[in-house]
Amino acid sequence: MKKIAVFTSGGDAPGMNACVRAVVRTALYHNIEVVGIRRGYRGMIDGDFVPMTSYSVSNIIGQGGTILKSARCDEFRDIKWRKVAYDNCVKEGIEGLVAIGGNGTFTGAELLMENFGIPTIGCPGTIDNDLYGTDYTIGFDTAVNTALDAIDKIRDTAASHDRVFFVEVMGRDAGFIAMQCGIGGGAEKILVPENPDSIDDVIGTLKSGGEKEKPSHIVVVAEGEEIGNAHFIAQKAKEALPNLDIRVSNLGHIQRGGSPSAIDRIIASRMGIAAVEGLLKGKNNVMSGIIDDKVVYTSFNDAINKKKALDVDLIKMVKILNS
Amino acid sequence: MKKIAVFTSGGDAPGMNACVRAVVRTALYHNIEVVGIRRGYRGMIDGDFVPMTSYSVSNIIGQGGTILKSARCDEFRDIKWRKVAYDNCVKEGIEGLVAIGGNGTFTGAELLMENFGIPTIGCPGTIDNDLYGTDYTIGFDTAVNTALDAIDKIRDTAASHDRVFFVEVMGRDAGFIAMQCGIGGGAEKILVPENPDSIDDVIGTLKSGGEKEKPSHIVVVAEGEEIGNAHFIAQKAKEALPNLDIRVSNLGHIQRGGSPSAIDRIIASRMGIAAVEGLLKGKNNVMSGIIDDKVVYTSFNDAINKKKALDVDLIKMVKILNS
Amino acid sequence: MKKIAVFTSGGDAPGMNACVRAVVRTALYHNIEVVGIRRGYRGMIDGDFVPMTSYSVSNIIGQGGTILKSARCDEFRDIKWRKVAYDNCVKEGIEGLVAIGGNGTFTGAELLMENFGIPTIGCPGTIDNDLYGTDYTIGFDTAVNTALDAIDKIRDTAASHDRVFFVEVMGRDAGFIAMQCGIGGGAEKILVPENPDSIDDVIGTLKSGGEKEKPSHIVVVAEGEEIGNAHFIAQKAKEALPNLDIRVSNLGHIQRGGSPSAIDRIIASRMGIAAVEGLLKGKNNVMSGIIDDKVVYTSFNDAINKKKALDVDLIKMVKILNS
Amino acid sequence: MKKIAVFTSGGDAPGMNACVRAVVRTALYHNIEVVGIRRGYRGMIDGDFVPMTSYSVSNIIGQGGTILKSARCDEFRDIKWRKVAYDNCVKEGIEGLVAIGGNGTFTGAELLMENFGIPTIGCPGTIDNDLYGTDYTIGFDTAVNTALDAIDKIRDTAASHDRVFFVEVMGRDAGFIAMQCGIGGGAEKILVPENPDSIDDVIGTLKSGGEKEKPSHIVVVAEGEEIGNAHFIAQKAKEALPNLDIRVSNLGHIQRGGSPSAIDRIIASRMGIAAVEGLLKGKNNVMSGIIDDKVVYTSFNDAINKKKALDVDLIKMVKILNS
Repeated sequence: MKKIAVFTSGGDAPGMNACVRAVVRTALYHNIEVVGIRRGYRGMIDGDFVPMTSYSVSNIIGQGGTILKSARCDEFRDIKWRKVAYDNCVKEGIEGLVAIGGNGTFTGAELLMENFGIPTIGCPGTIDNDLYGTDYTIGFDTAVNTALDAIDKIRDTAASHDRVFFVEVMGRDAGFIAMQCGIGGGAEKILVPENPDSIDDVIGTLKSGGEKEKPSHIVVVAEGEEIGNAHFIAQKAKEALPNLDIRVSNLGHIQRGGSPSAIDRIIASRMGIAAVEGLLKGKNNVMSGIIDDKVVYTSFNDAINKKKALDVDLIKMVKILNS
Repeated sequence: MKKIAVFTSGGDAPGMNACVRAVVRTALYHNIEVVGIRRGYRGMIDGDFVPMTSYSVSNIIGQGGTILKSARCDEFRDIKWRKVAYDNCVKEGIEGLVAIGGNGTFTGAELLMENFGIPTIGCPGTIDNDLYGTDYTIGFDTAVNTALDAIDKIRDTAASHDRVFFVEVMGRDAGFIAMQCGIGGGAEKILVPENPDSIDDVIGTLKSGGEKEKPSHIVVVAEGEEIGNAHFIAQKAKEALPNLDIRVSNLGHIQRGGSPSAIDRIIASRMGIAAVEGLLKGKNNVMSGIIDDKVVYTSFNDAINKKKALDVDLIKMVKILNS
Repeated sequence: MKKIAVFTSGGDAPGMNACVRAVVRTALYHNIEVVGIRRGYRGMIDGDFVPMTSYSVSNIIGQGGTILKSARCDEFRDIKWRKVAYDNCVKEGIEGLVAIGGNGTFTGAELLMENFGIPTIGCPGTIDNDLYGTDYTIGFDTAVNTALDAIDKIRDTAASHDRVFFVEVMGRDAGFIAMQCGIGGGAEKILVPENPDSIDDVIGTLKSGGEKEKPSHIVVVAEGEEIGNAHFIAQKAKEALPNLDIRVSNLGHIQRGGSPSAIDRIIASRMGIAAVEGLLKGKNNVMSGIIDDKVVYTSFNDAINKKKALDVDLIKMVKILNS
Repeated sequence: MKKIAVFTSGGDAPGMNACVRAVVRTALYHNIEVVGIRRGYRGMIDGDFVPMTSYSVSNIIGQGGTILKSARCDEFRDIKWRKVAYDNCVKEGIEGLVAIGGNGTFTGAELLMENFGIPTIGCPGTIDNDLYGTDYTIGFDTAVNTALDAIDKIRDTAASHDRVFFVEVMGRDAGFIAMQCGIGGGAEKILVPENPDSIDDVIGTLKSGGEKEKPSHIVVVAEGEEIGNAHFIAQKAKEALPNLDIRVSNLGHIQRGGSPSAIDRIIASRMGIAAVEGLLKGKNNVMSGIIDDKVVYTSFNDAINKKKALDVDLIKMVKILNS
């Protein structure tokens, strides 16, 4: 293998740059040329390639976002456009790809491989942590700490005013962020899609808290939460408990940005190295992940389709920790 | 004067605890007894007084929120309940009050003084910075830096995806927070109530930015902005510029919390000292503020009713800085 | 078991308070009374016990340091004083202990058990991560991120002035902190006690960096590094490479403080729960740790005497990542 | 004026990049060409000029350090080399200079003007805040908050172990940083060069603190403090008070780096705009500063030679706030 390309795709996540850096430097270490593709599959179709040197990735390990940019690319679902993308790669002399992103990214890579046989290894870059085949995805730990910092701030004002706050955090269909920042933030209740709570449970918790003279509460709600989003649940709670001062805060996009945490920089670096070294060993169509602190490769098929389980036993902790 | 009381009222602000600490310690320094009133006027009516010692305020200088708590108290508008509050103060032996809060807080204090003659000095504690008689209010600098940090994070994701973000910040009827964190965050446009912008201006800026190949933008919107809140303006912009990827982020209550910045701790300490020493010198019905780095006292009447001007010339800066 | 005690001992670590909170609330959840012992073994000898309620540990999950305080206690090596400590526990009705700390803490607990048979479970609280029987110790992730933040700041000034910085981090005889924050900070070289580097290696790296027109460097040095501390190594490097602008920064005690990270709060909570539930199940003389995300108990003997290996393969990463 | 140059010189300070950005964009706004000179006077002698566009300064407002780099340049004291520098400027077509830095930077600029008549305006960029003609220098507020954050962390460990910490902060011959972060950090004592304290005073404070059962203390020491540096003073205190557990922490270079605070970004932007607009108005040999929130120009001569007074009355606050 003489030349590879690296790109980021899907929602940006802190640590993607650390991963790009690792891919570039590992390629150079093995005397492989490396180009960056800007805006993911969009740039692959447009032929938006940039040569990468050691200097291109200098001092980006601590930067949020992705210097290679990311974009939606609906055309990529059409084999006609995948052909264009593939032809661009061939013209550029690219013999392997490293794709940093989530589910959608890997689906695209799998199709490209299936149609045209270009070897690809993925690195799990998403704040949601919802990928099978790795304990942590790149960006998850940073997003959790950002959300936790926000919850700490909201706790200040909740405690000062004896208020109840429903805090909505990201996570699409997965409660990983909610669970971590909820436990870390000392939330009185955590609502995640994996664990159906009835509105009555929530109201019960708030009610018994009020009776214990603990009138300030934080309820963390994952955006994908089954019984409705934070505003909806808060509305129901207000109706049932009109004496409580109930507020809602949707943390929103701040959870995607910021300088990556130590863990995110380290796993991004390890996964990036593993991706390039995997390509060199002939691996293909797999995601490099870390399980029990060891690098493992999981087929794109499994990474996309298998469900990573949230340890719902952690929810029991919440009850104990609020005794 | 042998005994005074201190309380916080209105929306909590970072640095209120630093101010409480300064009030308590300054009183003790002058051999004056000091009690805290919990939950502001609410606690004054309920007789919820707690004796304060040097130890009560130990290690609170860096804590967000207010250890004395705050609450709404609509009854206080009724002289009947103000009489109850006053009687409680008399019973407790309180000869002077330090009120930490904003407009509403000082209005209450003024009425109490008018009705019953209890000397009160205020300290401006509000993140909004909308009080006449001080360059900075306690909490403003921290809120600005919190909002700035959020904008930096949002910039990461905006730049990665070539997006436009409308970021709504706090400020009620004042654009101080928006202006500071907008300039600090390198915003392409800042919308404040003091400076009427038409929707067309906003759209024009976004359009010309797109033409300059600068497709990512941050527009900071103060919550009191005349032409509508961030969601409304964003909707209009989407209609006019359907090709842009436009998002909204409402920073919300995180702006109230967090450990106070150096400036907030220092001005809170200075104002707290000045409040107690003002009471000792026979001052009354005034707010202690800092103008041009010097402590000044402003009558409650002026602090409440005069309008602190936002330097709208700063808005010109935004245009220059985006050249 | 009707009553237990919890204490912190040895160097303080962020997350100790989260662990104290978990111990207290878990005990209450199981209807067990719980007291705190102030200043570790010192307080056990002095009989410095404080009853703990749910409210005692309210809002401490995010606080650095330890509300129970910590202290050296050389007398505890003498069985005479251990007898005094034990008698105090008996008098207080304490039937089990939870000890939060490191090596020295567990050695004390083991002796106490051996002499007088009081059941004890430990929670690994030390920033150094040098305890066998757990992947992470409480405080480690926070300390790493604090050091990383400092290195990021130093990188700003190093890059602006083309300087070389030797940054000394904590870790006693272990390179865990150095390795994590070195990789995360993009250090050009990491010196840890587990991996003997000669001065010549360091000088060689700096020299080749200079030739690559990469004149700014960060070298992270663990305080226990064999070939000498940061000042000594920097001195040698200055002598060999007089043209480089070489500086030293010893990060010092800031690494111990600060609000704990999400991970530290979560593992502290899990380990605290596991400690109390372990006591209830009759476990004794063990440390509760987390390996591969599962709670495990390790005998004090192993925790103290077995050596936790640093993955020195990570050092190879440093070479690759600086290609 | 058709073309100007901007450079940074002396110790780097957070906000220098925000100032460079403002200078570049203001020049472009007025249709003036602008180049950057790398490494200050060093680059002026070497002819190391880089053309600056709006894009060159994109997304640097929040970056620590200086993208234009800085360096010592002893040759510049020699008129022979200043002639070389000047000739390079003339060759490049540079008609005016904006110099961002401190005392030494302005001394160089003054000489260059005196010898060859090239108009220069300075922007005060130094964390030390020791320049006459401005309330705040660029970088000061960030450095203070960085030091304050470190002191907060050290307080955690000091309080947990009942320790006394001597914390040395930067400031060369000025106590501005020490004073601000000392008051903000609730220090029990602040030692600054402007206010001679005898060792006995320090020891007296520590002693009386110990008697008040307040055994943990923070003493902030400015690096230029007259009675000796932190290590020296701590040694004396240890000898006098052997029962106290006394430690030293030198915060060092972390104080120079990091993302600038809101204030630093705003004043850097305002001063940068004022520098370019000053040049356009024919101003010369002056520093743009901000006093009482208004832009003012002060001659280099005054900025360098007049002494900015530290408000030593603030020291009285320390005594009151520790009552």
